[in-house]
Amino acid sequence: MGKIVIIGAGVMGSSLAVPAADNGHQVLLVGSPLDGPIIERLRQPGGIHPKLDAPLSHSIEPLAAEQLEASHLADADCVVAGVSSPGIAWITEILQTGLSRPCPVAFVTKGLDEGSGGLCTYADTLPDRVAHMSDFIGIGGPCIARELANRQPTASVYASSNMPAAQALVQMMQTSYYRLGVSPDVAGVEACAALKNFFAIGVSAMQTRYRDDTRPDGQAKNPTAFVFTLAVAEMARLTQRLGGQQQTAYALAGVGDLHVTVGGGRNSRLGHGLGTDRTVGDLMASELAGETVEGIDTARMLAQWFRSGAGLSRQDYPLATAIIDAVLEDRPFRFDFSEITFG
Amino acid sequence: MGKIVIIGAGVMGSSLAVPAADNGHQVLLVGSPLDGPIIERLRQPGGIHPKLDAPLSHSIEPLAAEQLEASHLADADCVVAGVSSPGIAWITEILQTGLSRPCPVAFVTKGLDEGSGGLCTYADTLPDRVAHMSDFIGIGGPCIARELANRQPTASVYASSNMPAAQALVQMMQTSYYRLGVSPDVAGVEACAALKNFFAIGVSAMQTRYRDDTRPDGQAKNPTAFVFTLAVAEMARLTQRLGGQQQTAYALAGVGDLHVTVGGGRNSRLGHGLGTDRTVGDLMASELAGETVEGIDTARMLAQWFRSGAGLSRQDYPLATAIIDAVLEDRPFRFDFSEITFG
Repeated sequence: MGKIVIIGAGVMGSSLAVPAADNGHQVLLVGSPLDGPIIERLRQPGGIHPKLDAPLSHSIEPLAAEQLEASHLADADCVVAGVSSPGIAWITEILQTGLSRPCPVAFVTKGLDEGSGGLCTYADTLPDRVAHMSDFIGIGGPCIARELANRQPTASVYASSNMPAAQALVQMMQTSYYRLGVSPDVAGVEACAALKNFFAIGVSAMQTRYRDDTRPDGQAKNPTAFVFTLAVAEMARLTQRLGGQQQTAYALAGVGDLHVTVGGGRNSRLGHGLGTDRTVGDLMASELAGETVEGIDTARMLAQWFRSGAGLSRQDYPLATAIIDAVLEDRPFRFDFSEITFG
Repeated sequence: MGKIVIIGAGVMGSSLAVPAADNGHQVLLVGSPLDGPIIERLRQPGGIHPKLDAPLSHSIEPLAAEQLEASHLADADCVVAGVSSPGIAWITEILQTGLSRPCPVAFVTKGLDEGSGGLCTYADTLPDRVAHMSDFIGIGGPCIARELANRQPTASVYASSNMPAAQALVQMMQTSYYRLGVSPDVAGVEACAALKNFFAIGVSAMQTRYRDDTRPDGQAKNPTAFVFTLAVAEMARLTQRLGGQQQTAYALAGVGDLHVTVGGGRNSRLGHGLGTDRTVGDLMASELAGETVEGIDTARMLAQWFRSGAGLSRQDYPLATAIIDAVLEDRPFRFDFSEITFG
């Protein structure tokens, strides 16, 4: 059996500890500086994660951020970065100072980054910032953390430019309920992982904007299905512009993760508010106060990219530009079907 | 303005009359032999379609099957075949005997057919059976009829090997709420239109099989999102085998129509029953008695195809074979995540 160190004890990092522990590996679950109360709860007898419904296995060892030492990482087969995107600078520093020998690092942290050649993914920028990261492995796919922690079945893709590194982690992590594939398209998986949060805002807006009161959930279905399809098409083309393959957007990291992100979570709640003509500013000051809505950061980075003369035309991305405009101009979400044309 | 003759006054055919009439065209809505009561209702003052919530426009002229004469079709710019798949033989006969001069025919009737070279789409077989069909136009995309009749926005694709014919009908049918694109991949659109009903059975089974009682709808989301993604992948490969393009499955006729078909309609209700370990025979003898569940017919045709030595491997299609087995062997739907592997 091996050793996996997961850094970030929020829902996503903690849920990944479940299949790892089920496979008999030694699992160290390290809290971020914000995870102190979670680590404390996990250390109590029968410790249940406060944001997951399932108790974590006894073989998972919780550790507070300030207790992490280089020795904890020295014998790890893999480190998993499980913080959310605002924690990316912190975890980069931890990995740079803490890794004393080459080790693969898998990321569920999602976001876009600014590289020397313009907008790109963490797969492009982080390897240069972490000397001993032997391989960058990106994780994508439909994965609501609470469901994974409760061993509800799903599938994900582990992507790395070094396929044997991805395969080795898949060997360690795959269980009967957590099915895993590998891909060499790490840029594509990383691009989709960030973009799906962003596009989920626009698709979710359709769920509240168009009503059908004859249905139990009150939602008309055609507008959501169309905009879901449009999101997939725009995601595929943006993924290619970010160095990935369109096909990746049609698979687990794109279609699959977008499907699960629409209808649940914070990006979707923001979209539901936009669908009723509220503004981002209003929503972030009320229901979503204090929450991290990752699609907003992605919208800001995409806005810069559209403006930067990278050759992206607003007409080619009607959904993306509608979301960007609502976020940056803090005005009601305007998505006009009558302006949609097919080239 | 032009003239459009829609044959089939069920929900789908009748709903297409709405954008056609909104564009000012003369619309003749012809009932099938089963649509007598509908035509009678539509002829009453303020005539409301019994299965749609919206009254149809006064400019739509209802006509009973037995009243249809060749003269009604002689000056049509396009005929739309709007019956469901059991009506395909009837409408083929009507078109063959009724069309006295070349006329394009658009089909929302969905299904697979048996051609000289094996399994294929109506686009392959019907042109030979209707002498005066100048062009076969296939219609695909997310389109719940009642929503279209109520002018909720959506988009569809009109496909023909003769693109100008598709474009001409798009010109006649597109409105501010019914957005239309064209495609030359008529085999792909037709394949997806049939396959999405079939795959919706398997995706819908996940919605009832895996529970999350913390959610308002009680559904775990990861299993459905994964199986939706798997359905898209298998649909894309089967579409290619049927002479279409994989890309078509990633767009409106595939992803879009599958999205809207899961969670509503008869195929989905069958899937919901399968998800709770009931059998097709049981469901078709109770809740679904007397209903047309088009995915069942598609399952039977696909089963023959898999058995025919066409080189389709069951392992490559775990979802399709699980649905086929449940339908043909009338046994509980068995879809085992632990057996899913990624090539």
